[in-house]
Amino acid sequence: MNEHQQRLTDYLAAFIDELSSNGVDEAVISPGSRSTPLALLLTHHPRIKTYVNVDERSAAFFALGIAKAKRKPVILVCTSGTAAANYYPAVIEARYAKVPLLVLTADRPHELREVGAPQAIDQLDLYGRHVKWAVDMALPESGQEVLRYARSAAVRGLGMSIGEPHGPVHFNFPLREPLIPDLRGDLFEEGTAKRVYQGERTLALDQGEELEKVLNERNRGIIICGPGMSPDGIQAVADFGRAKGFPILADPLSNMRSGKHGTDGIIDAYDTFLKAGTIGEHMKPDLIIRFGAMAVSKPLMLFLKGLEDVPQLVITRGEEWQDPTGRGTHYVYAHERHFCDRFTREAKQRDWIEKWIRLNEKTKDLMQEVIGEWGEGKAVKCLLETIPEQSSVFVSNSMPIRDVDTFFFSNDRSISIHANRGANGIDGVVSTALGMSTQSPSTYLLIGDLAFFHDMNGLLVGRKYGLDLTVIVMNNNGGGIFSYLPQAKEGAYFEELFGTPMDLEFSHAAAMYGADYSLVKTESDFLQALRQAEGTKGLKIIEVLADRQKNVENHRKMWEFVSREIHGGERS
Amino acid sequence: MNEHQQRLTDYLAAFIDELSSNGVDEAVISPGSRSTPLALLLTHHPRIKTYVNVDERSAAFFALGIAKAKRKPVILVCTSGTAAANYYPAVIEARYAKVPLLVLTADRPHELREVGAPQAIDQLDLYGRHVKWAVDMALPESGQEVLRYARSAAVRGLGMSIGEPHGPVHFNFPLREPLIPDLRGDLFEEGTAKRVYQGERTLALDQGEELEKVLNERNRGIIICGPGMSPDGIQAVADFGRAKGFPILADPLSNMRSGKHGTDGIIDAYDTFLKAGTIGEHMKPDLIIRFGAMAVSKPLMLFLKGLEDVPQLVITRGEEWQDPTGRGTHYVYAHERHFCDRFTREAKQRDWIEKWIRLNEKTKDLMQEVIGEWGEGKAVKCLLETIPEQSSVFVSNSMPIRDVDTFFFSNDRSISIHANRGANGIDGVVSTALGMSTQSPSTYLLIGDLAFFHDMNGLLVGRKYGLDLTVIVMNNNGGGIFSYLPQAKEGAYFEELFGTPMDLEFSHAAAMYGADYSLVKTESDFLQALRQAEGTKGLKIIEVLADRQKNVENHRKMWEFVSREIHGGERS
Repeated sequence: MNEHQQRLTDYLAAFIDELSSNGVDEAVISPGSRSTPLALLLTHHPRIKTYVNVDERSAAFFALGIAKAKRKPVILVCTSGTAAANYYPAVIEARYAKVPLLVLTADRPHELREVGAPQAIDQLDLYGRHVKWAVDMALPESGQEVLRYARSAAVRGLGMSIGEPHGPVHFNFPLREPLIPDLRGDLFEEGTAKRVYQGERTLALDQGEELEKVLNERNRGIIICGPGMSPDGIQAVADFGRAKGFPILADPLSNMRSGKHGTDGIIDAYDTFLKAGTIGEHMKPDLIIRFGAMAVSKPLMLFLKGLEDVPQLVITRGEEWQDPTGRGTHYVYAHERHFCDRFTREAKQRDWIEKWIRLNEKTKDLMQEVIGEWGEGKAVKCLLETIPEQSSVFVSNSMPIRDVDTFFFSNDRSISIHANRGANGIDGVVSTALGMSTQSPSTYLLIGDLAFFHDMNGLLVGRKYGLDLTVIVMNNNGGGIFSYLPQAKEGAYFEELFGTPMDLEFSHAAAMYGADYSLVKTESDFLQALRQAEGTKGLKIIEVLADRQKNVENHRKMWEFVSREIHGGERS
Repeated sequence: MNEHQQRLTDYLAAFIDELSSNGVDEAVISPGSRSTPLALLLTHHPRIKTYVNVDERSAAFFALGIAKAKRKPVILVCTSGTAAANYYPAVIEARYAKVPLLVLTADRPHELREVGAPQAIDQLDLYGRHVKWAVDMALPESGQEVLRYARSAAVRGLGMSIGEPHGPVHFNFPLREPLIPDLRGDLFEEGTAKRVYQGERTLALDQGEELEKVLNERNRGIIICGPGMSPDGIQAVADFGRAKGFPILADPLSNMRSGKHGTDGIIDAYDTFLKAGTIGEHMKPDLIIRFGAMAVSKPLMLFLKGLEDVPQLVITRGEEWQDPTGRGTHYVYAHERHFCDRFTREAKQRDWIEKWIRLNEKTKDLMQEVIGEWGEGKAVKCLLETIPEQSSVFVSNSMPIRDVDTFFFSNDRSISIHANRGANGIDGVVSTALGMSTQSPSTYLLIGDLAFFHDMNGLLVGRKYGLDLTVIVMNNNGGGIFSYLPQAKEGAYFEELFGTPMDLEFSHAAAMYGADYSLVKTESDFLQALRQAEGTKGLKIIEVLADRQKNVENHRKMWEFVSREIHGGERS
């Protein structure tokens, strides 16, 4: 082994060993030349599972999916050039969805930067403000100081990625040829590693009093839980709500609608009853407590906007500013559990919460009455009621997440719902779901045709690694959500710019990626296809033909019916 | 029309009118909500041709292709969020390939930024240092001052995009709801526009003397022309070389190997004879003059590296630093034409250039002798000799561009060769070729299976707009280039990390996107498929099955044969 190879090997092995010793155990690699030593060392590592994913955009979302499911950082590796730029959408999603990613990009050494060398771009600060930390690593050198530096950088970046809010970190590695490390010998000496302990925020000793006053003076509070709750936060908030007698309006992505934490007092039909019309003065809250990110529901957002003079506490684990309505009054940066433990006090009366529960139940009864016809909504409801215990459902943006918000009713099973709600893109959805599927016994992806098209490349890794995923493509041949927006009235240009029919037959994609495929047009076909998928390994694509116009009409009919019935009931 | 709608309409119409009045006439739009007014106004504009492309990554490369072919800026429009991040690979390619792009991203207004609002990310400086200018536009307002500001920003950005080096410019538009403009009335009043005149660099009066001395003291100069020559630069350099008696080593992407500028003195087999062995001392130049970016050929790069003490003039039209070998001595920022006009002087003797021409011819004769067997090289040679006059050939990175470098011999036809050689990515290649096809009577894409896979989504726009493109997919089931690199010896991990076989049948992709498809395994099949493609409109995919190992052997055999024969000849 020559000196160059020794330096290269020791330096990168130390870096990787440090990550591995701190529990990082999965890496997603895209093929390339400059990244060769990183790719070889990771693949050679006995305790790191590696995936190879050719399309870097898909690769990054795939890693994001694994990291979301594991709640642990995942390594990404690619070569120099635009390869690294293909990570950008997933890096941004990771930032806003608070998912830890360790992005390792190979780069040309300094003498080949910005001189017109092939496949060399300016990779410093490539992801701008969208990573929590970006470091241009030193060139591989020998000596203990440099190895210590490599280990420090690794553990430091890792620590930052899991500090609240979690997020992506970028390591840029300039590397000189030749690029082959020496894989003989004992490269990974677990045990010598540094450790980082990420403490969590709690309220300081002098911070409780004012908040206590706000909370204790009010009996008509509502709790809103959005995406991104921590697992122990879920139990703490459920207990807190029950004790205080405050209803919990739980977004499907809060993962409070399903689970063993107890779902009494969980309000899950608010999107419909808030949309259906103003709720009476007697249900106006005098306090709002929000956990997590903003909920998906637009009616809820508008309801909050209308509550101008009501104190609104926004509790986030890190320094996120989660206040799109601008109605926040008290911003608390502390773990949900610490907040709840501090302020839980048994309420004396249950009238307030009972009102919410009654309206919620009535709404759901009415929805059952009117949902009859087969369509997107019905399909989503079917899916959510049919899938086995412990399933993960990954939901695409645009229409699917709204349908799930409407039709996923609380239960004591353990169904978890996930989506890319950091930046709400329709990109990378297939790959994120596949990433999650690696960590779950049963994973479903609910997705529209545009989002499915956008990341069809993601399917390759599904076939390659025999991943189990059932994809339900709601094919309404275009952008369904626009039919709900004012654009729908722009007759002349609507189909061209917003409807955007693609006229694709996804059976071809299924054939290319070796997926089981079925096309369904009725409820019984759909149930049959779901049953078959449950018993089958690998990729399964169920294409549900849907009609954009009819879907809008079905939704409108439901809102109108609920509105009429509830308002009728209120008057009587 | 209410006041908000009036402001929105007038402001954006003025911006677009300004671009149109300055000759911008194509736009590529990806569907989205926040970008609605931009999309509607562009589509409504009578003199702007619009394309709708769902996948923003493909959309941006498609626009890049149009802009490359037209040598004019093209507009890109997308909505807020990760949509804009999907443009990043093409934006970076545009920067390094010097292609003007006008990137228009819609954004949330200020009150919805960084507050957890849906589909809102920090879009300021989204593309970092990779755009020539980034501006966060003002919110739409009324009044002449604001309209003048919108027009100034438009023409200023446009001007920057076509200043040397050409490149991308980013306009970020914060927009408030409602987002529908009023399309009645006369919105585009061409004639009131501002104008920008981008002057070109010439040598200052006092800059000639020293350069003249360097040039006149030397008779054994060689000229190297890389990618990115200007059309009038090609003629000027061809004339300059002929007059000086300097051979011109022309990269295929210089577009000097084919055309009416005269190809005597054009050396096109240097990649082979430089690779085949050291050329004799009697062919050592005493002067190197480089135009354009660095050539593709690695043997040429190594040859230049060996010429430590030879003056090397690097002429670029803008302030690009094109010196990956670090051997440059004189950097001239001036248009090729001005440089050549200034220093052209008739040479007295032709010995020097004749030596180069003889070696070049002999090499090509030897290559003809040994190329016999069917394989990737032979297919590329077939293609280049068969395609009709005026064809554009878009060549993917990795192996295809190297094969074209080897086998595209100079001729007086008008075949133009293009590639994404800014950052040399394998991303977006299909879309770039489709973009170019919109401007050319006959376009071919030569591409490997990995790159084809990477941008299969790009094909959708081909079908939608009935674009004519013949795609030759060299399917060697993986990353062929790695077989030439030291990684090939890493037995255990090679196939997994570098070979990366995908086992895809592209006939499924052809079926999905309505392309004519043929699978060829012999030369006669290939010629037959090319003939059929020539007579057929639309997308045509010719899949050439290739063998990675055999391809390496064929290349090695050729280099060895040429080396042996030339060295034998030298000794005799």
